[in-house]
Amino acid sequence: MDKDKPQNEHPLVIFMPSGLRGRIPAGTTLLDAARQVGVEIESICGGQLTCGKCKIRIETGTFPKHGIRSEERHVSPTSPEEAELLKAERAQGCRLACSTTLLGDVLVTIPEESQTRKQIIRKSATERPIEVQPAIRQVYVTVEEPKLEDPQGDWERLQKALSVQWGLQSLRMDVSALQNLPEVLRQGHWSVTVILWQQGEVIAVYPGFREGIHGLAVDIGTTTLAAYLCDLRTGELLATEAMMNPQVTYGEDLMSRVSYAMTHLDGLEKMHTNIIHAINELAKRAVEQAGLQTQDIHEAVLVGNTVMHHILLGIDPNQLGKAPFALVTHDPLDIKARDLGLRLNMGANAHILPLIAGHVGADNVGVLLAEEPHAQDEMVLIFDIGTNGEILLGNRNRVLSASSPTGPAFEGAQITHGMRAAPGAIERVRIPPQTKEPRLKIISDDHWSDEAAFPPRSVAGICGSGIIEAVAELFMAGILLPDGRFNPDCQHPRLLQGDQGRAYVLANAEQTKSGQPVVITQKDVRAIQLAKAALHAGAKLLMKRANIHTADKIILAGAFGSYISPKHAMVLGLIPDCPLDKVFAVGNAAGDGARIALLNRQKRLEAKEIARWVEYVETAVEPTFQDEFVAALNLPHSRDPYPHIQVCLSEQRDCAGAHADESDHVTRKSSDGK
Amino acid sequence: MDKDKPQNEHPLVIFMPSGLRGRIPAGTTLLDAARQVGVEIESICGGQLTCGKCKIRIETGTFPKHGIRSEERHVSPTSPEEAELLKAERAQGCRLACSTTLLGDVLVTIPEESQTRKQIIRKSATERPIEVQPAIRQVYVTVEEPKLEDPQGDWERLQKALSVQWGLQSLRMDVSALQNLPEVLRQGHWSVTVILWQQGEVIAVYPGFREGIHGLAVDIGTTTLAAYLCDLRTGELLATEAMMNPQVTYGEDLMSRVSYAMTHLDGLEKMHTNIIHAINELAKRAVEQAGLQTQDIHEAVLVGNTVMHHILLGIDPNQLGKAPFALVTHDPLDIKARDLGLRLNMGANAHILPLIAGHVGADNVGVLLAEEPHAQDEMVLIFDIGTNGEILLGNRNRVLSASSPTGPAFEGAQITHGMRAAPGAIERVRIPPQTKEPRLKIISDDHWSDEAAFPPRSVAGICGSGIIEAVAELFMAGILLPDGRFNPDCQHPRLLQGDQGRAYVLANAEQTKSGQPVVITQKDVRAIQLAKAALHAGAKLLMKRANIHTADKIILAGAFGSYISPKHAMVLGLIPDCPLDKVFAVGNAAGDGARIALLNRQKRLEAKEIARWVEYVETAVEPTFQDEFVAALNLPHSRDPYPHIQVCLSEQRDCAGAHADESDHVTRKSSDGK
Repeated sequence: MDKDKPQNEHPLVIFMPSGLRGRIPAGTTLLDAARQVGVEIESICGGQLTCGKCKIRIETGTFPKHGIRSEERHVSPTSPEEAELLKAERAQGCRLACSTTLLGDVLVTIPEESQTRKQIIRKSATERPIEVQPAIRQVYVTVEEPKLEDPQGDWERLQKALSVQWGLQSLRMDVSALQNLPEVLRQGHWSVTVILWQQGEVIAVYPGFREGIHGLAVDIGTTTLAAYLCDLRTGELLATEAMMNPQVTYGEDLMSRVSYAMTHLDGLEKMHTNIIHAINELAKRAVEQAGLQTQDIHEAVLVGNTVMHHILLGIDPNQLGKAPFALVTHDPLDIKARDLGLRLNMGANAHILPLIAGHVGADNVGVLLAEEPHAQDEMVLIFDIGTNGEILLGNRNRVLSASSPTGPAFEGAQITHGMRAAPGAIERVRIPPQTKEPRLKIISDDHWSDEAAFPPRSVAGICGSGIIEAVAELFMAGILLPDGRFNPDCQHPRLLQGDQGRAYVLANAEQTKSGQPVVITQKDVRAIQLAKAALHAGAKLLMKRANIHTADKIILAGAFGSYISPKHAMVLGLIPDCPLDKVFAVGNAAGDGARIALLNRQKRLEAKEIARWVEYVETAVEPTFQDEFVAALNLPHSRDPYPHIQVCLSEQRDCAGAHADESDHVTRKSSDGK
Repeated sequence: MDKDKPQNEHPLVIFMPSGLRGRIPAGTTLLDAARQVGVEIESICGGQLTCGKCKIRIETGTFPKHGIRSEERHVSPTSPEEAELLKAERAQGCRLACSTTLLGDVLVTIPEESQTRKQIIRKSATERPIEVQPAIRQVYVTVEEPKLEDPQGDWERLQKALSVQWGLQSLRMDVSALQNLPEVLRQGHWSVTVILWQQGEVIAVYPGFREGIHGLAVDIGTTTLAAYLCDLRTGELLATEAMMNPQVTYGEDLMSRVSYAMTHLDGLEKMHTNIIHAINELAKRAVEQAGLQTQDIHEAVLVGNTVMHHILLGIDPNQLGKAPFALVTHDPLDIKARDLGLRLNMGANAHILPLIAGHVGADNVGVLLAEEPHAQDEMVLIFDIGTNGEILLGNRNRVLSASSPTGPAFEGAQITHGMRAAPGAIERVRIPPQTKEPRLKIISDDHWSDEAAFPPRSVAGICGSGIIEAVAELFMAGILLPDGRFNPDCQHPRLLQGDQGRAYVLANAEQTKSGQPVVITQKDVRAIQLAKAALHAGAKLLMKRANIHTADKIILAGAFGSYISPKHAMVLGLIPDCPLDKVFAVGNAAGDGARIALLNRQKRLEAKEIARWVEYVETAVEPTFQDEFVAALNLPHSRDPYPHIQVCLSEQRDCAGAHADESDHVTRKSSDGK
């Protein structure tokens, strides 16, 4: 045999920087190989060779430290489609993991932009006054000892004690608590602490007096998972943990996930297991942080959009991908956490908030609980901007809801140098009209930097908030016209002419990690226009239904929503015109809603009621949606006056300095002190 | 190294006749090694070197077929205690598996008597009229299709259909049914069959019209498990399956099991897993027999004594082994079968009948449901004789219950040549007073045989019913005196004088498999006297409490109970005197009770009520128990007159022929046609 030819049926593959390795059958794609050894690679299209995000680099040579000889010919050759997507990066040895198959031993580097783990998690809990009235209660009782003459079982004697000492009647007992009862009673010398759920079920018993009942609120976002560990007695937030939704490996947007479940026999099972493992991991981290154990979590409340909700429950989300978008149920659910595979206290209940409609999920019900438009006189317009855009409008008389097909542009996908909110991402942009030279702020960098002062090779790309600001600033600086085109009259060294039209250089080659300039292209501006027009048109439809022209108050919610500059969002026309001091960024309101339902069982009844009461508007069937959408494509809008932006624009012209930025963000006090 | 010396740290061990093999760490006992490779060896004491039942033979030589060279020195040498228990069998190469440790490769033969798998299962269901009113109900409904304008979930639309078409309200749905709902509705083109539990919970949904609801009744005996698969619509018994309780490996009687759980950290877990696996296996066999699948079983009802009940639920039975014998609960339990690890329909409920007291379990509640003493005017005395003896006495005014420490003698344990009801066991004995020569019937042998006609080398030992008949016949033939001693005036070639006193040869050396005679020794007679006296004394205590001298009716229940000859039981004084035509053998009444509760949900309420209503008499604390026990040691009794036996004895003298035997057994018609 030719000893140079790779002939191993299970070549060794090592992924850097993690160093995770494995022997994988030859012919496997590197994207699949990565999954198999537990490495996450960024992927939007889920391997359909359209997004070009799963860039990796094949290292060549002998690496004695890793005990591997890696060669380029140990993987399949580059296909024309792949080459098209890779462009200049092909010369740097880049490949797409999804279309590169394994033939022999290789050492693979995953560039920072392609790593999914480095996410900066922005979902932190907001301090809100919540009345603590949980579904979990603990009582301490002394139980009569058994006697030969009194042939009562341990559980009967405990029931008697609970009835006499606490007036509790008609109790059930979970089998997991029953299993421990004999030992616990004797260990506690006939005094025990009983954990009750909904006043009716004993879910755990502990020997002696033992203070402490805890709950976990979980927000299952399409991209990010956030978990809040709470003391159910005091309401105190003990720990916040967040991580990427591991399902992003199967596609970044909801429809890719639905499609993955439809096209793979084990797709649903895989994604369900994935999300359950992830929540278990979050729970583990949260209790570690608080010095507790997972069995100390006595209840969980979970929210998520409709697709996440179905996958969490192990229900095929297939129907959510096509009209009439039928859900399995709108009702809130109480399920033993163990039945979902969650490893909390063995008797713990998992409460899942109700859904509103095919595209408006339990996460939106969480937003309702947190923001309570239904309890206000003012007309409130709420944008929940995550990977999906959802809109609520109303007051105590009526609340309307809609879901808007924004697409993933706000998350950095479909943007030339777009990326998630990870280290090296440009998150803030200022372009003073006088100089038209950009000033940037990147994640992991506290200071605004102009070109000269910027640390070299630190920029990796641009994230959602950066893109919004960049486009709005380009518009305010006169570089972009209201229709989104680059102004042909404007000439500047930062403006390049490429194959695909003009582009503005935000960071030049010396500033970036890749050594390629980070630019905003005409295509990028178009993507942002489409996304913001969808949101705006959705809001306009609801306003029309509610018969109002302006909202009294606008709320930007969502992990991403809380980082949008309200001024820039308005300049862009993402939100309708409104006094700027009536625009609030509230952070992860969905997660806050889950926390509210966790801490207050009355709020669960309220959630059930409002979920049914809220009027869902299916934008897809509204005849005027298309018209509104087209009108909203312009910056800020082709028809609507934006009186408050005129003020902003003149302010912007007057004081284009560093200090103006601090007043741009109207934020409530956040519990993590940021 | 000395190549003759066994030096392998994991010697190979092969068990015959199964051929199961494994490499087991040196130093392991052969009893443990057998467990590890999945071979069951008879063991009563659970390895405490007191029962001498775990006999095995080390084969020596080279066995090319098995690829092993087996030598005697590949196991530990025989200890004096072991030699004492083995006696003559030591010369035949026998060892006790529990005290023989592995040093090198060995081929081990397990003699038939030491195999636990060859059990003849006598637990068959009795035909009883049962009103069919199960907890499971199936309804067929047509559900409205979802429309874009009607944003109701699948479950909401199903609820509406169930309400409109069947008047069913306030329904819950099990998560497992919810998971399938979207697919099932669409597969069934919006017509589905819904399975409801207790009129309140949807536990399964099937596309279209699908007839068939099924349930499994399970009797968890200490020694034998029996399962009855029923059609829940017609009540029809579709399949009966039985097998050894795999826990017998951990000790044959209940207290050995409790002790195993106490002395082994994973003892409870092991026995719990064992019983769950066994029930799953029974369910699998039963559905295969009926052409169904395990997911077709929509409910299970389980009964067992208190120790089996606790182990089934995964509850430490520790407290049942010591005063005050506190149970975890007396109440009936409804638990999702999946929570116990049972693999039936995913939504299936497991109903566990209530317990009466520390020693009187759900199996006895089953007997109550089957025999209904509480619904009768006659005073009924019920003996449930299995590995444990339980007694019920009463009528519609009052029912008393007691548990009697019979010990395992009736099961063949503690008897010199005792064995379970397995092939080769003597099950019937006649000893005509004229000849004093025995006539025997062995299991797997249809005919009565006297010495001449008996097939050579076919007898392995004597089982419970055989022992009872043998002792009673020896007494009736004048060989035994009323106090149980061998009559010193009686001389016969069958009577031997050994170290331990006299013995009667039931089968001589030519007739037995071992080549050693099967005898009844003085010690065996004493063991039977102790066991029957305990039962009799228990019954007497109850009769005293009830203020009666004779019962109107005596019922012999239990797998073993149904094979006892009523006449011989009375001659022995196991049961009090009573007209013989008022003694009934009813088979496995506990299993029948489970079946009744499975088929009729009203009977579950009745069971709960009577379990609390029955008066439990703790014989251990009754001051007169000891006196009654001593008086009951004589054959049939030292004080009580047995007028009906006088008749029997004269009958016996008149017609000691083969035809008299058929009238000995008063049995109800049994569904298996035996």
